[in-house]
Amino acid sequence: MAREVEVRVRYFETDRMGYANHIHYFRWFEIGRAELLRDAGLPLTLEEMGLALVLAEVGCRYKAPAKYDDLLQVRTRIVEVRPKVVRYEYSVQRGDALLAEGFTVHVCTDGKGRSIEMPPDVLEKLKAHVGK
Amino acid sequence: MAREVEVRVRYFETDRMGYANHIHYFRWFEIGRAELLRDAGLPLTLEEMGLALVLAEVGCRYKAPAKYDDLLQVRTRIVEVRPKVVRYEYSVQRGDALLAEGFTVHVCTDGKGRSIEMPPDVLEKLKAHVGK
Amino acid sequence: MAREVEVRVRYFETDRMGYANHIHYFRWFEIGRAELLRDAGLPLTLEEMGLALVLAEVGCRYKAPAKYDDLLQVRTRIVEVRPKVVRYEYSVQRGDALLAEGFTVHVCTDGKGRSIEMPPDVLEKLKAHVGK
Amino acid sequence: MAREVEVRVRYFETDRMGYANHIHYFRWFEIGRAELLRDAGLPLTLEEMGLALVLAEVGCRYKAPAKYDDLLQVRTRIVEVRPKVVRYEYSVQRGDALLAEGFTVHVCTDGKGRSIEMPPDVLEKLKAHVGK
Repeated sequence: MAREVEVRVRYFETDRMGYANHIHYFRWFEIGRAELLRDAGLPLTLEEMGLALVLAEVGCRYKAPAKYDDLLQVRTRIVEVRPKVVRYEYSVQRGDALLAEGFTVHVCTDGKGRSIEMPPDVLEKLKAHVGK
Repeated sequence: MAREVEVRVRYFETDRMGYANHIHYFRWFEIGRAELLRDAGLPLTLEEMGLALVLAEVGCRYKAPAKYDDLLQVRTRIVEVRPKVVRYEYSVQRGDALLAEGFTVHVCTDGKGRSIEMPPDVLEKLKAHVGK
Repeated sequence: MAREVEVRVRYFETDRMGYANHIHYFRWFEIGRAELLRDAGLPLTLEEMGLALVLAEVGCRYKAPAKYDDLLQVRTRIVEVRPKVVRYEYSVQRGDALLAEGFTVHVCTDGKGRSIEMPPDVLEKLKAHVGK
Repeated sequence: MAREVEVRVRYFETDRMGYANHIHYFRWFEIGRAELLRDAGLPLTLEEMGLALVLAEVGCRYKAPAKYDDLLQVRTRIVEVRPKVVRYEYSVQRGDALLAEGFTVHVCTDGKGRSIEMPPDVLEKLKAHVGK
């Protein structure tokens, strides 16, 4: 069961083609990720601990366009957790229509940009959400 | 003589109406401001000194639209400098056509968000650019 | 009584200073405006009628910063309606703290960019919301 | 030989971590793509012909962060052309340091969103740039 958030396509998100520009999907993914972490009782960032979950890779496949004022459902899921790495997957739907599917990979780093293992309690809580 | 920078209207900056969305003008103003400060030998931010030039007010009047791929001239000018405050004015033109005019007001603050006077050398250099 | 919408400050909206960048307030204003029009039973745009409400002027005063993950209340109000012009005012609060106040002025134009009077029914509905 | 454009990291592109937010790389890719097409004498969009090159897939791997005011080199290359599909690859460097690598896949569609072959002259010019 993925975490679902609803987002509405705003005028400033449309481009000359009349559809939501592809860039905004990554903003919607961030919203889904933040709300999933909030629900899981996890810190939204690890910055308070001197750590950072740095984005290492993103991708998105666009299947159908989203129009101005469309109400979209963004579903976010943690699909893999390793000591230094978390992978999320996302879908964007408008009701039954699948508009896009994406993923992000995040690496835990210390204050100097070196990859480092996440704190055990964070790791456990993330693992408890894999596949949910 | 204002500092001029050229910007091109990109696809992601257009909206469904086919014109550059009004929000992006404020991004272009920031580009103009940064390049004016660079030319003047001033720090782009004061953050290295534990200070910050915080935006206190912005405004823009839009007179004619900018289209996809238009090449625009953004002119930036310092119009007022007081110990804690700097005011910039901007114009956006496409050749002879004036598309927009705007302004920003910045207040110098310390690390705790209190307004504070700018360092004397910064102040002098800024004053030397008023009206240019 | 203004129309209130809640927005949350997202990570991509923060800048190096750690606060929501001033640009995003204009996006929040658009969200408030769209939801006010929806509630009033008005078209969100007039594009279906071959008309457009073009932004003619915007402004914002920033009084206190908004931080990552802050939940903000954006209140939108129509303050003036003339046959060709609508003026909105906005406030951004975090609970009791006033963070910013802004306005936008929109002009009704036909397909060729000439200013034109709004259709009478649109005008009446907008007037009925002035000061509410 | 890829088409190179230089972009500078602006303040509004940084996020709370102090680095350019990952979203902006896709804007830089669009800039590179537009300038490559301009150099090749190709239409920046196919909209004038009633066609559209719709984004079907994007991806990016981030290897090192870009900081405020960094001057970056974005290199864009066409790597595959099929009658209905074009694939671009991009790199983002700061001098010798490789910061990111990405790709975009575009599908030619008609006015109703159906995939369609590109006009022969467009196709030929695009093919002439593969691997360059």
